[in-house]
Formats: sequence, structure tokens, C-alpha cells
Amino acid sequence: MTRSRARARAAKAWAGRIAAPTAPAVERFTSSLPVDRRLYPHDIAGSVAHVRALVRARLLTRREGARLERGLGAVRRELDAGRFRFLPSDEDIHMAIERRLVELLGPLGGKLHTGRSRNDQVALDLRLWLRAECDALDGALRRLQQALIAVAARHRAAIMPGYTHLQRAQPILLAHHLLAYREMLARDRGRLRDCRARADELPLGAGALAGAGFPIDRRFVARQLGFRRVSANSVDAVADRDAAAEFLAAAAIAAVHLSRLGEEIVLWASEEFGFVELPDAFATGS
Amino acid sequence: MTRSRARARAAKAWAGRIAAPTAPAVERFTSSLPVDRRLYPHDIAGSVAHVRALVRARLLTRREGARLERGLGAVRRELDAGRFRFLPSDEDIHMAIERRLVELLGPLGGKLHTGRSRNDQVALDLRLWLRAECDALDGALRRLQQALIAVAARHRAAIMPGYTHLQRAQPILLAHHLLAYREMLARDRGRLRDCRARADELPLGAGALAGAGFPIDRRFVARQLGFRRVSANSVDAVADRDAAAEFLAAAAIAAVHLSRLGEEIVLWASEEFGFVELPDAFATGS
Amino acid sequence: MTRSRARARAAKAWAGRIAAPTAPAVERFTSSLPVDRRLYPHDIAGSVAHVRALVRARLLTRREGARLERGLGAVRRELDAGRFRFLPSDEDIHMAIERRLVELLGPLGGKLHTGRSRNDQVALDLRLWLRAECDALDGALRRLQQALIAVAARHRAAIMPGYTHLQRAQPILLAHHLLAYREMLARDRGRLRDCRARADELPLGAGALAGAGFPIDRRFVARQLGFRRVSANSVDAVADRDAAAEFLAAAAIAAVHLSRLGEEIVLWASEEFGFVELPDAFATGS
Amino acid sequence: MTRSRARARAAKAWAGRIAAPTAPAVERFTSSLPVDRRLYPHDIAGSVAHVRALVRARLLTRREGARLERGLGAVRRELDAGRFRFLPSDEDIHMAIERRLVELLGPLGGKLHTGRSRNDQVALDLRLWLRAECDALDGALRRLQQALIAVAARHRAAIMPGYTHLQRAQPILLAHHLLAYREMLARDRGRLRDCRARADELPLGAGALAGAGFPIDRRFVARQLGFRRVSANSVDAVADRDAAAEFLAAAAIAAVHLSRLGEEIVLWASEEFGFVELPDAFATGS
Repeated sequence: MTRSRARARAAKAWAGRIAAPTAPAVERFTSSLPVDRRLYPHDIAGSVAHVRALVRARLLTRREGARLERGLGAVRRELDAGRFRFLPSDEDIHMAIERRLVELLGPLGGKLHTGRSRNDQVALDLRLWLRAECDALDGALRRLQQALIAVAARHRAAIMPGYTHLQRAQPILLAHHLLAYREMLARDRGRLRDCRARADELPLGAGALAGAGFPIDRRFVARQLGFRRVSANSVDAVADRDAAAEFLAAAAIAAVHLSRLGEEIVLWASEEFGFVELPDAFATGS
Repeated sequence: MTRSRARARAAKAWAGRIAAPTAPAVERFTSSLPVDRRLYPHDIAGSVAHVRALVRARLLTRREGARLERGLGAVRRELDAGRFRFLPSDEDIHMAIERRLVELLGPLGGKLHTGRSRNDQVALDLRLWLRAECDALDGALRRLQQALIAVAARHRAAIMPGYTHLQRAQPILLAHHLLAYREMLARDRGRLRDCRARADELPLGAGALAGAGFPIDRRFVARQLGFRRVSANSVDAVADRDAAAEFLAAAAIAAVHLSRLGEEIVLWASEEFGFVELPDAFATGS
Repeated sequence: MTRSRARARAAKAWAGRIAAPTAPAVERFTSSLPVDRRLYPHDIAGSVAHVRALVRARLLTRREGARLERGLGAVRRELDAGRFRFLPSDEDIHMAIERRLVELLGPLGGKLHTGRSRNDQVALDLRLWLRAECDALDGALRRLQQALIAVAARHRAAIMPGYTHLQRAQPILLAHHLLAYREMLARDRGRLRDCRARADELPLGAGALAGAGFPIDRRFVARQLGFRRVSANSVDAVADRDAAAEFLAAAAIAAVHLSRLGEEIVLWASEEFGFVELPDAFATGS
Repeated sequence: MTRSRARARAAKAWAGRIAAPTAPAVERFTSSLPVDRRLYPHDIAGSVAHVRALVRARLLTRREGARLERGLGAVRRELDAGRFRFLPSDEDIHMAIERRLVELLGPLGGKLHTGRSRNDQVALDLRLWLRAECDALDGALRRLQQALIAVAARHRAAIMPGYTHLQRAQPILLAHHLLAYREMLARDRGRLRDCRARADELPLGAGALAGAGFPIDRRFVARQLGFRRVSANSVDAVADRDAAAEFLAAAAIAAVHLSRLGEEIVLWASEEFGFVELPDAFATGS
């Protein structure tokens, strides 16, 4: 954040300090912990893989690697148990974990930062998180498909009105109506799988933006973390979040399908339609 | 949620239970606590006003009213101090507070629900929250206007390039450039004030949707809570959230202005522009 | 778009022309005509007011002013009648109209640009358009309110089920239900009026960004065009479009109310609800 | 849109006609022509394939089929040439084309509707349009990738500052910076291809919602139109538009990449950065 004195002087006529709030306000403003603390399991998994790569590159001894892995395991247990104490100076989850690691292991903890920047670290965490969320949503949608198929199978012969613009148009099978959702959810699952496949790329090694200055074996790290590919361009790896936007789009489209099904059940459960009766365990009062 | 047996039988051919997940899942799904717990100060303020109205309507004795107010104060202190224990069965902040009140005061706690529904209660809490947020944002924007004016006053004669499409177009005063933001923020503040004025209406008394069945003096409640008007139509009062949408629009437009100012400072702080140098207290590394 | 040779040479190593498509492609890309041609009545009204201000400032003779006004009238009639011929080189509606004016009047047409930039011209057109749209929507919503009140008055005693979550909750008057929309639309109209009042400010005189270099009486122009105020800061006047964002928010919120009413009629017109029967003139097939 | 008299009488107390605007207003309101007229090449291609399927199913004679194809060709030429006259009663592009076909061919024109509904017809048109748009965007992004690679190849050794938060962080190759966009655009192209593959499914045969009542060979139609699959469920086929939402998401994400590149060129072309100088053919004034 330095700049040449010469230019500063040249510009001096109209330059100036725009404002001067206190540093604690800046600390609170720039903290991303309320958002990124949920990334902690991925951050630690990424750090374990990084430690192994540092050992492999002889940038850490085996003994140091083992101590760091144990330390990361200890931090993880604190986080899992809700015992981890965040400090106001913890700008993000990466700094919080490293800070704690140094408390536990001394200067060795700081070696974890070798050949890595917070820029490629958060890019890694986000991809690991997206991969896990894609898998979780895919599983949930698969179970919903199975439930729909099961209901359709139980009511093979049931006939209901088919509607256009909520006007009765043609009779259809209830099973046919329900299986339409199976198709929609199949596409939703396809979108999540496509998103996952596109995000399945190791960004680590990009450093702040120009690559890491150490001979770290990126394919080894990728294998450790189950990535199919390593990113080809470091600027792209640290400075794009399109995988997150794609995931949100896929999730939003799936939510439209779920909302349609939900709204239909609301309609069917009305006195006027009376197509379904919800069990008491599923009803609440207003 | 009952429906006529006759229709049920008629529809029976294709009716049925669509799905049957466990009730705890429903409990988790329908809980709004993670979102609405922040409404607690407003919920308690609304309940205190309601207690006074119940006393005034002789639906509670003075003594009952006093005990309820003290109980609400105790609950508030627990919430303020982070000592309040939420239960999985607390569907929302209203139920959590009433449940606790009954624990503290016995059956008397339940009388708070007299002449009130969770529908008009949450409508009330939201309005109180919006009013407070409008005031807080208005104050923050006013302070920013003052800061901009102060910087402009300190640099009355400073000249800078005026840009169109980031090409230098005409020289302008730095003060003139900064005071453009004063104008933008003035409109932002106007939007917040208009939003506040439109939301400044007591919904309590609407009940679930058709009005409360007790002779509660709504103007008295409105005065207690500082509302300018009482809502004219109970269906509208409980079933619209346009004030929240308006608030979000006003906040989003203000955020565009703040983002523009922020982006400009990023640009000015670049080596290439060099118009400002940020103090170290305002800089963090990447 | 020039830059200092010295810097150019210093940067030469990695500078260069990023791409070189043909100019016609740029022409098509930068044209805003498909969007801004609808602004033409406002553009011409603004130009007429500007001509009068130029005459008043003795920058045009009375005779020139009269000829320009007649020319603008002729262009307007061509546009009204759909006879106006746009050219590919017409980048926007302002240039199209000025180009045509020069064709009709010769060099005099070019004098219209005196003391005005396309930047403050489009800012003006947009405000005039927003003002007219706010008035048109306000009128349409007022007529809808009147229709709702008329239906309510014709069915004073009609009772219908009041619903929560589409479950019958309490009986209500149909009139009460319909009048809830009167309240919603009243707030929608209030939002449009607030938006209009905030936008009711003359930007003309801001030039490209640093103000016009001629002694034009802005209050006179504002009176001609029916503006309540003149903008206080030229940078703000040409470089903000928050009035458009506010208008879109107000229109979107109103659209939610209209959609709610529309969806309700769809529901009521269903075989199952059967609350309304639409006349054939209002029904189409699928 | 009829409903049983019995229910109508039962409900009579509070039922009624909500409003009674004139039919022409409804006609204007429900017309989708301003939006869907762009679908006409796809609508006609779909109709040609449908005609062939009707001939194959012996629902039309070969002679009728040939006449209908020629008629559709004539309508297409009118639309291509801008000579087609739309009528206020043309509710959408499908009706406009059929109406014109009947004018040209007499009653035979009406046979085109056999075994088809406007519901599956518009679903078909939309998919054909999406497929074509995906291909067009994919080609445009491929050409941009090639242009970026060409510039990178011409400037292999050029070094520029790499920035984080617009602060100079590390030197990088210009080529490396530009090739980051190649990666982003590769993912954008992947999203478009995935979207296209998912939408590549013939909906025709779904009828209004419950399937067509004629023995039309859907696989034959799919081959005629180049679709890989036929839709499995008629309710899904006519009542989902998720492919359009997915396309919009893919296009919006690509637009973010293009905007980032565009904004960077704006920055680089500034006097202060001076990294590029745009040729005059690419510059316009303000």
C-alpha cells in the first residue's frame, strides 16, 4: 500500500485522507468469520493435504508434518465441539485456525503458510464446500425422487383432474402427475452434478495470484483431496467465483420445483380441493 | 385442518398421504428462530404495550399487569445477557418468550395471548424492527454526509480531474465531487424516511386475520409504541410485508452509492491514480 | 482518448491493441436506440424548453428560436406518425433528433447543442419519462381502487371464508377482503408519488459533468418543464440513476400486489373454489 | 371455464363478477406476440416436422402434406421479409401463423393443429430457440477465446503488474493474465453445452398436458428436428421452463466475465494506467 513519494507530491494539491475511522471498526467491517466459519472442516482438510505436500517437497520434516497434522486434528476437535474461542483479530477462518495452531505448536504452526496464500486457500475451501453441498443436495433430491416413485407405485390406478390455468382440463393418473416431478428433479440433479464436475479442480498452488514459489506437487495435493484436475491458470484460480454462482442457480431452480410441489400440497390440502389430508405430525397452528 | 368426511370419501380414489417424514424434521423446517430471534426487543416492547392495553380493558387486573411486565423484563434481561435457553420446540421468538414467561409466572403467562395472534404479533415486531433500522441507517448516512462535508471544507481549493468513462474530461473541485455524494445520500435518507412513515402503523388488533374479539383500545397501544396510525384493514395488516420489500430496495440503492464511493477510493488508492493514501489502520494484507 | 507519449513508451513492452473488430460492430453495440427511442416526446419537450432558455440568454435570436421550435415540432410529427427514418449512425435518440433537425434547418439545427451535453440531456429525458410513468401508474392504480370499492359496495353483506395457509380460519366479509387491496394499492401509490417527488428536479445545466459554460437560467427551464427544483450538484445530476431504481422497486412491489389479486381470482375461478365465474369476454383457451 | 350450477348457487351469497373490462383490453393483455414473434423460424420448422409426422401416421395425405409444407414456406418468406401482417386477434405467434396458413390454403391449414396443442408447441419452440442461442453464444465465446490466445501469442514476453485489490502485488505475464479469461470462457461454454444437452428433448406429443390422442411417431419427429431424446412425461414437458432459467443463469455468468474484461479495458485505457490505447474506430464521444 506504499506509493512513490514523487507521485504523491505531484498529486498533493488535491490528494488527502478521505476519512479516518478507528481501526476496530475496520476489523469488524472486514471480518468474514460470520460467513466463512462454516468452511472450517474443509479448511482443515486442505491444510492436512498441504502439510503432506510440504513434507513430500522436503519443506517440512516428517516429524514436523506429523506434529502439524496432530495440531490440526486438535483444532478441528475444538471447532467440532463448539469449544473454539474466536478472537476479534481473527479476520477469517484461515487466520483463526493458524492463530490457534501457533498457540498449540509454537513457531512450527506458522510453517503451514509456506507456499500458500489466503487467496488460494479460500478458493480451495469454497470448492471443497461446493462439492460437499452438491453431493448433499443430490442425495436429498434422490431420496425425494424415490419417495415420489413409491407414492406413485402405491396409487397406480388413481385418477385425478389435470389442470391448465387451474381449470380442469383432462383426467390424468396421479402417478403420472407425481412422476413429472421425478423428471424435474432428475434435471436438478444433473445441474448439480455438472456444477460439481466443473468445480472439481484444485486451485491450491496459485498463491496470491502468480503461483507459489515452491516445488509443491499439485497433482499429489489434488489426489489427497479427491480433485480430478488441477487449475491451469493461477489468476483464474484465485479470482473467479463462478462455481458458486452456478451452484446458486442450480439450487434456485431446484427450489422452484420444490416450491411448486409444496404449493400444490397446500392447494390439495385445502377444504375446497380436499385431495390430501396431512397427518397431525405435519401440521402446526397459526 | 379437518375436512368434511363426505368429500374425503368422494375424493378417496386418488387421495392419500403424499409423504410421512418424522415430526422433528418438520419442527426444524418450520422453525423461524434463526431469523426472528433478533426481533426479541421489539417483541417484548410490543408485549408490554399489549399488557397495558389488557389492563386498560379490564381483561387483566393491575396486579396481573404489573407481574406480567416484571416477567417480560426478566425474560428480556436473559435474552440481553445471552442466558436465554431456546428449546427445539420453540417455533419462533414469540413462542419462546411466552413459554419462558409461563415457566416464570405460571398460568398468568398464558394470559398474554389474550386478544392477540402470532400473525399480528410478528407483523408488529417487523414494523418496530423496520422503524429502528430506518432510524439507524438514517443516522449512519447523516454522519457520512457530515464527514464528506468536512473533507470538502478542508480541501476547498483542491482540483482533480473529472472523468467520463474513466477518461479525463474536465477539471473539477474535489469538494464538488465529494458533495455529489451528499446529494445521493440525501435521497437515500429520504427513501428511508418515506419507508418509515409508510410502515408507521400499528397492526396489532388484527388477530389471525379477522380482528381481535376483545375491546382493546388500539389507539392507546399505538401511542404506547409511538405509532402514528392504526391499520385500517385486518387482512392487509397481517398479510402484507411490502414495508420490508421497500426497506430492502431503499437499503440496496443506498448500498450502490456506498459501493461507488468505496470503489472510487480503491481506484484512487492505486499506484496509478495515487490520489489518496490510506492510513495503515485502514489497510489489511491479502 | 489521447495519452502522454512518454508513458506510452514506458508501458510499451506489454501494451498493445487488445482487439480490432470493425467499427460497424461497435456502432451496433453502442447504439441505445432500441431502448431510448421511447424517450422521444420528452427529448423534444426538453429541447423546446432549452431553445427558449437560449433565446432568453440571447444565445439565439427570437427568430432562430422560433425556427428551431417549428423544426422540433416537425420532427415530433414524423416520430408520432412512424415516418421518422433512423440511420445506423444514430447512436441514440438525441443524436437522431439533432441529425434530423440539421437536415431540416441546416447549420441552425446544430445550435441546439449549445450549453448542453448528451449526458445532462438523457438525465433530463429519463426524469421526464419517470414522472410521466409515475403519473400513469398512479392513475391506473386509483382506478383499480375505485373498482374494488365499487365491488365491495355492491356486496356489503356477502360473507366468505377467511384463510390462513389456504385453510379456512374465520368467516370474513368479501368487502373486507377486497378493501385490503385498497390499502395495499394506497401504499403503492404513495411509493410512486414519493419517487416522483424525489425525481422532480431539473438536471439540465450539468453539461457533461462540470456544468454548462453559458449563463442559462436553470429556474426558467425548470418552470417550463414543470420541475419543482433544480439539481444542486452537476456530478450527481449526470451520474446517478437512483430514481430509475426506485421506480422499478415501487413498480415491482405494486406488481406483487396485482399478482396476488390475479392469483386469487385464478383460485376463486377454479371448479373447486367456484367463488367467481369469469365472463366469456375474459376467458381464452389453451 | 364452466362450473357446476349447483355449486354456483350454493356459493351465490358472496360470489359475483369481480370486474368487467372490455375484451379488447384482455386481448392486448394476453397477447404474447411482442415476445414470442422471434420464435417464428422455430415454430415453422416444428410445424414442418409435425406435418411429416402426420403424413407418416396417415392423418394427412402426401398431397396435403406437400401443400402444407409449401404454405408454411410461403408464410416463412413473408415473416423473413417483414411483409407478414399481424392482427390484433393473433394471440401469439402460433395462432398468427396458423391463421395465415388458413388464409392461404383454406380449411387444410386448420389440419396442422391435429395432435398438437399450443402448450407443447410453445414448449417445442422454446427448446429449439434455446438450442440455437446456446450454439450462437458458444461460437461467439470460442471466437473471443481465439482472439485472447492470439493477443497472448503476440505478446509472449510482455510483463505487467498483477494486482490484488488494485494494489500492485506481483509481476505477471500479460499473456498469463489474458489466458485466465480463456479458462473462464471455457467454463462458460461448458455451461452452455450442458444446458443445451439437458434441453435437447422433444416435448411435442404432450398435447395440452395429457398427451396427444393420435399415433404420432415421436422418435421420427425428434429425428427431423435433431433432438437426442423424447420427453418421458407429458405434464413435465408442457409445464416446466427450467431450461430457460438455466440458460439465463449461464448467460448471466458469462456476462460477468465479459463485464470484468470490459471494465479492465476501461481501466487500462485511462490516462493513469495507460496500458492500452484504443483505435479511433472503437471510441465514441460523450
